[in-house]
Amino acid sequence: MPKILWINPIGTADYDQSLQKWINTAKRPDTIAKVVSLEKGPFSTEYRYYGALVLTDILHQVKQAENDGYDAAITGCFCDIGLREAREIAEKLVVAGPGESCLHIAASLGHSFSLIVPRKELIAKLYEKVVMKYGFGNQLASYKPLDMGVHDFQESQAETARRIEAVAKEAVENDLAEVIILGCGLQYGFYEVLQDKLGVPVIDAVVAALKHAEMGIELRKRLGWGHSKRYEYESPPAEEIKRWELADQYPGVKGL
Amino acid sequence: MPKILWINPIGTADYDQSLQKWINTAKRPDTIAKVVSLEKGPFSTEYRYYGALVLTDILHQVKQAENDGYDAAITGCFCDIGLREAREIAEKLVVAGPGESCLHIAASLGHSFSLIVPRKELIAKLYEKVVMKYGFGNQLASYKPLDMGVHDFQESQAETARRIEAVAKEAVENDLAEVIILGCGLQYGFYEVLQDKLGVPVIDAVVAALKHAEMGIELRKRLGWGHSKRYEYESPPAEEIKRWELADQYPGVKGL
Amino acid sequence: MPKILWINPIGTADYDQSLQKWINTAKRPDTIAKVVSLEKGPFSTEYRYYGALVLTDILHQVKQAENDGYDAAITGCFCDIGLREAREIAEKLVVAGPGESCLHIAASLGHSFSLIVPRKELIAKLYEKVVMKYGFGNQLASYKPLDMGVHDFQESQAETARRIEAVAKEAVENDLAEVIILGCGLQYGFYEVLQDKLGVPVIDAVVAALKHAEMGIELRKRLGWGHSKRYEYESPPAEEIKRWELADQYPGVKGL
Amino acid sequence: MPKILWINPIGTADYDQSLQKWINTAKRPDTIAKVVSLEKGPFSTEYRYYGALVLTDILHQVKQAENDGYDAAITGCFCDIGLREAREIAEKLVVAGPGESCLHIAASLGHSFSLIVPRKELIAKLYEKVVMKYGFGNQLASYKPLDMGVHDFQESQAETARRIEAVAKEAVENDLAEVIILGCGLQYGFYEVLQDKLGVPVIDAVVAALKHAEMGIELRKRLGWGHSKRYEYESPPAEEIKRWELADQYPGVKGL
Amino acid sequence: MPKILWINPIGTADYDQSLQKWINTAKRPDTIAKVVSLEKGPFSTEYRYYGALVLTDILHQVKQAENDGYDAAITGCFCDIGLREAREIAEKLVVAGPGESCLHIAASLGHSFSLIVPRKELIAKLYEKVVMKYGFGNQLASYKPLDMGVHDFQESQAETARRIEAVAKEAVENDLAEVIILGCGLQYGFYEVLQDKLGVPVIDAVVAALKHAEMGIELRKRLGWGHSKRYEYESPPAEEIKRWELADQYPGVKGL
Amino acid sequence: MPKILWINPIGTADYDQSLQKWINTAKRPDTIAKVVSLEKGPFSTEYRYYGALVLTDILHQVKQAENDGYDAAITGCFCDIGLREAREIAEKLVVAGPGESCLHIAASLGHSFSLIVPRKELIAKLYEKVVMKYGFGNQLASYKPLDMGVHDFQESQAETARRIEAVAKEAVENDLAEVIILGCGLQYGFYEVLQDKLGVPVIDAVVAALKHAEMGIELRKRLGWGHSKRYEYESPPAEEIKRWELADQYPGVKGL
Repeated sequence: MPKILWINPIGTADYDQSLQKWINTAKRPDTIAKVVSLEKGPFSTEYRYYGALVLTDILHQVKQAENDGYDAAITGCFCDIGLREAREIAEKLVVAGPGESCLHIAASLGHSFSLIVPRKELIAKLYEKVVMKYGFGNQLASYKPLDMGVHDFQESQAETARRIEAVAKEAVENDLAEVIILGCGLQYGFYEVLQDKLGVPVIDAVVAALKHAEMGIELRKRLGWGHSKRYEYESPPAEEIKRWELADQYPGVKGL
Repeated sequence: MPKILWINPIGTADYDQSLQKWINTAKRPDTIAKVVSLEKGPFSTEYRYYGALVLTDILHQVKQAENDGYDAAITGCFCDIGLREAREIAEKLVVAGPGESCLHIAASLGHSFSLIVPRKELIAKLYEKVVMKYGFGNQLASYKPLDMGVHDFQESQAETARRIEAVAKEAVENDLAEVIILGCGLQYGFYEVLQDKLGVPVIDAVVAALKHAEMGIELRKRLGWGHSKRYEYESPPAEEIKRWELADQYPGVKGL
Repeated sequence: MPKILWINPIGTADYDQSLQKWINTAKRPDTIAKVVSLEKGPFSTEYRYYGALVLTDILHQVKQAENDGYDAAITGCFCDIGLREAREIAEKLVVAGPGESCLHIAASLGHSFSLIVPRKELIAKLYEKVVMKYGFGNQLASYKPLDMGVHDFQESQAETARRIEAVAKEAVENDLAEVIILGCGLQYGFYEVLQDKLGVPVIDAVVAALKHAEMGIELRKRLGWGHSKRYEYESPPAEEIKRWELADQYPGVKGL
Repeated sequence: MPKILWINPIGTADYDQSLQKWINTAKRPDTIAKVVSLEKGPFSTEYRYYGALVLTDILHQVKQAENDGYDAAITGCFCDIGLREAREIAEKLVVAGPGESCLHIAASLGHSFSLIVPRKELIAKLYEKVVMKYGFGNQLASYKPLDMGVHDFQESQAETARRIEAVAKEAVENDLAEVIILGCGLQYGFYEVLQDKLGVPVIDAVVAALKHAEMGIELRKRLGWGHSKRYEYESPPAEEIKRWELADQYPGVKGL
Repeated sequence: MPKILWINPIGTADYDQSLQKWINTAKRPDTIAKVVSLEKGPFSTEYRYYGALVLTDILHQVKQAENDGYDAAITGCFCDIGLREAREIAEKLVVAGPGESCLHIAASLGHSFSLIVPRKELIAKLYEKVVMKYGFGNQLASYKPLDMGVHDFQESQAETARRIEAVAKEAVENDLAEVIILGCGLQYGFYEVLQDKLGVPVIDAVVAALKHAEMGIELRKRLGWGHSKRYEYESPPAEEIKRWELADQYPGVKGL
Repeated sequence: MPKILWINPIGTADYDQSLQKWINTAKRPDTIAKVVSLEKGPFSTEYRYYGALVLTDILHQVKQAENDGYDAAITGCFCDIGLREAREIAEKLVVAGPGESCLHIAASLGHSFSLIVPRKELIAKLYEKVVMKYGFGNQLASYKPLDMGVHDFQESQAETARRIEAVAKEAVENDLAEVIILGCGLQYGFYEVLQDKLGVPVIDAVVAALKHAEMGIELRKRLGWGHSKRYEYESPPAEEIKRWELADQYPGVKGL
């Protein structure tokens, strides 16, 4: 049975339970998915600095997951914090991220997509980097800011739904978006009603990453198609890690 | 149980049986996959003209598949002949193609890929179009021609394996490719041995499309994430098709 | 005397006469230009599926034109349906298309152009593909939809002229377009009045393709500069066509 | 009768006669084409500085040509020195240049082209700028330097032909070029033999510009499609030129 | 002591004094900066033709500056007229231009910038060329025209300040610009007040070029990092200049 | 007096002294530059994982430098680890990095550059990311691997010099590079001899970053041109950092 660890990369367990529920509704019956958050850290990753603070804890959780027999880990932030680093230190583990997953899924459902984002301040800081990193700049119809903080999404769900619908409609009618991406892991729970109203697919970031991970496991196990370990994801040599006594310096390293 | 139709877009059934076997080894246990070829047509799609000849027959088979209760159809040529048109006329059916599937899978396994192609003559004609269409030009390490016709691949399997291995090694060592894509549906059967030898993932085009289709069905059925019917894939209006009496003119249209 | 065949790729002869007239006003005195439409087929090519239905008939008309001694054929739809395939099967015949012709002419008349298109729905489906295919994305100022069907253009010419003028003015003043392209073969007859009013060149798609074809013939005959038959436009081998008995299967193939 | 002025932008009349002859063999029967060179200036434009020295003399000759009733002027250097400036000051005159003409013609003859250039030193200085300026970077197969000075081409024609053939063959076979462009106005006289040998179109820069100019005149006169005078090619106001007494300062300005 | 020549490339000394004052407030204490304008020429460089008229005089002033012991010269127009040509003929002299300097400085201060330009007519003619030439197209947030002539900026400073502030605010709030560039040498004197009001850096083109030149001198003198003389900036050979007697034909050439 | 902190982002002080010496030879007389390394951490940043391990320590050193009255900090690895994050948390401090500095300096010295890199394995992992991040992909001539580890550079200086010279010559002669960048902070000490031999500028990464920092300080102090704090580099709100008690969780946070 495929085992997936969802790492919510923030220092609060506030969302763990509802995320776990949400994921349970979407996972394949035989998938075992577990949600964890970090023991310490900021409550959001809206700033690059917050992302930096949580980075090594994410990586060590990923490596621990591999050691514990998980088949996949998900770095659960739309910006895919630590995704590439995690693939570097993982040997066989599949590592997925919501940003990459959403963009790939959107790209085969339609010609162009719009990203629903919390605030316009985050476009340059986070979203443009994600879109460019995966090479989908030509398919971007627009960024649509909601003018909300990430913690507001689940607080006032009715207002969130109302705002998302309003900007998503603009995206489809004016910006000619064919697919809507809910560009934040905490916008979970809204896609179904919305896509019925809009008549276009609406991608939930949590579900997208989960499905990508499930598919990744299948590709890995059945076909041997895992992350290439040449060049980009080549692992650091164990010998160096030992020689430099990194495990003594960073507790998490002992898992490597 | 997910039902998938693999359309081998050539006018010979010569490969149906071995492809069916190959697909059976790779499909999920509960997937029903059926291979068909065309009743008439050229034996390859190495020329755009050949692709043009078979185009409507592919499309009508796709539509028929939808009408017959299939969940997905695959236009089984690396150039994805008819893929976009098929998505236009399909309502709920998932339509996948080897080119799109291979490129998407390769893109999340590594930084760059090389495409193993039959002859250098086909690079401009077919392969560059595929790579550009899906926006993965920046991740292309190289095209590696085998200097073989597409029908030679299964004829002399040992020679094919030898040549693929030689150019794939060059791709990895000199062109810094992290993933190898076998860029033709008839290069099936070689990826496993090859990836063991090379130490990087080797993508089989048949299997990649199959897996993409299986995932597409899951996304469609469980989540409602199908091809967007706004803009790019908007269907032609039934009323026009009727008014212009297209079904009287083209036998296949009656399925629409 | 240069002989050009204009293929109106739709299954109605409704426009043949007026297009013939229009072309006669623009052709060089010594050019012989003949307009034909298809014996069967949809009345427009607004959907990719319609384009697929008419594709082989276009190609076989092109090949027949070559066999009948024509010097050039024009695939008369802005999306240049079949243009590349036609160049593949033609030996010496010049093949031109309105999309390619308009973009090339516009590119040497000014820095940027706007495309006047029937409906916004067609931008992703057709127009973006044309602009990207020929590499002129950087020179695109905007797409300006008229919110009209292609058959409305000649129906209510006054209304058409009024709408084109309104959006073209916006294109020039707000989007900084330097050249206007009338992005549909059925927008013929409007450019002259419009360019007098706007003070910028307005490219008529029918005339542009005609002129491109006339120039192409001159280049071909005087200088030997025809479509390169290496790689992209390499013809399918006659031997294969014969061996696979394609002429028995598709009536039009016998011309090859 | 269309009148075209070919401006050889160098300070020697050494090539005037042979260029005139060459052009006479290629022009339409009713075209009047006259070759002139500059009264002063360097003998080549291989350096940007040389191009700067001759720039105003070219522009004033262009303007004089317009005043003298010419229909078109050609700035006869592959780098199209002064082309954009000339279009700015011209009112109705068509202005063509070999670089733009060659690239446009090549782009509709095949998928990719190689540029035969005198020396590798000129690639960054001149050729990359031309290719980028017109947006054809994606179609460039390669630059092939001859390791010759521009004045050597006509000196030792046999050697020139031999070298061009050698690098052009490489371009076609190794770099997959479908069209060859002779990237210097002084490589005239070689294309015909060469294209017979190579089997792909070989574009002569002098002839290409001549044909582009002839076509430009036809578009201008018959259809009113001249260079757009909005934005990019907007003319400097006569009032300013007068107020600043430019004609007293620069002899050539009096033609404006 | 580093000596810099600022060449105001227009035929009027009207701005020399106030520019000299402005530069004196910004230069390093030990820098000697001198402002000159041209003996003849148009009063602005808003048209390419004007740029062509002044080009050789700029270049010869640059070369004279090198001969007179200057360490750097600045071609003082945002479009960097003659910048590349000047680097070609200079041996050791640093040559800077406001366009290049502003874009490089802006690029390390933030993610995106807006360019405040005189009139929308100049965007295609001048500004797009500058932005593209240096490869910063991806960082452009917007062009914001002031609808003013270049000579109005210093005439009615209060109005200029008011307009710049209005469009710059739009740029920051709506277009998400992080840095504002005052895209004309004659918009000097406004940046300080403006950046206090806006809260983002506002780049003055005169000061930016001055600072770039000061840094360039330091790199040149301390580290030997001057403009590379291979390929792009390779100098024309003195022997050719002599053989062609260019100094007799163009007075300025004698400095070379 | 401008104070600059050079952070060598590795957990060994082995290079501190020689780097300090090297920097002292290149700094402006009135600059105070101090080299530090990290108290813990890997000895190189050749893997992304190593970069992750040292990231927060770098950031907290940067912030501490700001609190201690430094004017600039340099994140001393060619990949600019932490550069963007550091600018986010800095208020007035200038933050520079070798990668950004080298590319900007190279871009105004010539048309194209080659990057001398330790091993080919690092191209995808590190170097392509740097080149793409700053938008200089079009100016890259080539990557030239030395096939050496980063610690070998100073070990066997003669061998290092020999290898660099060999590949740099290839870069200039074959790849047409106009500028050479020594793409690793530990390749210090080689540029001067090399650029004398090659005749093109050779950029030392340590010196480049130092000079960029000195210039950045000047721009910041004299002109107020610091990193824009809108959008990309907006600081995380102090209130959040306090509310989430981050300083209790991460020792370094208390500096914020």
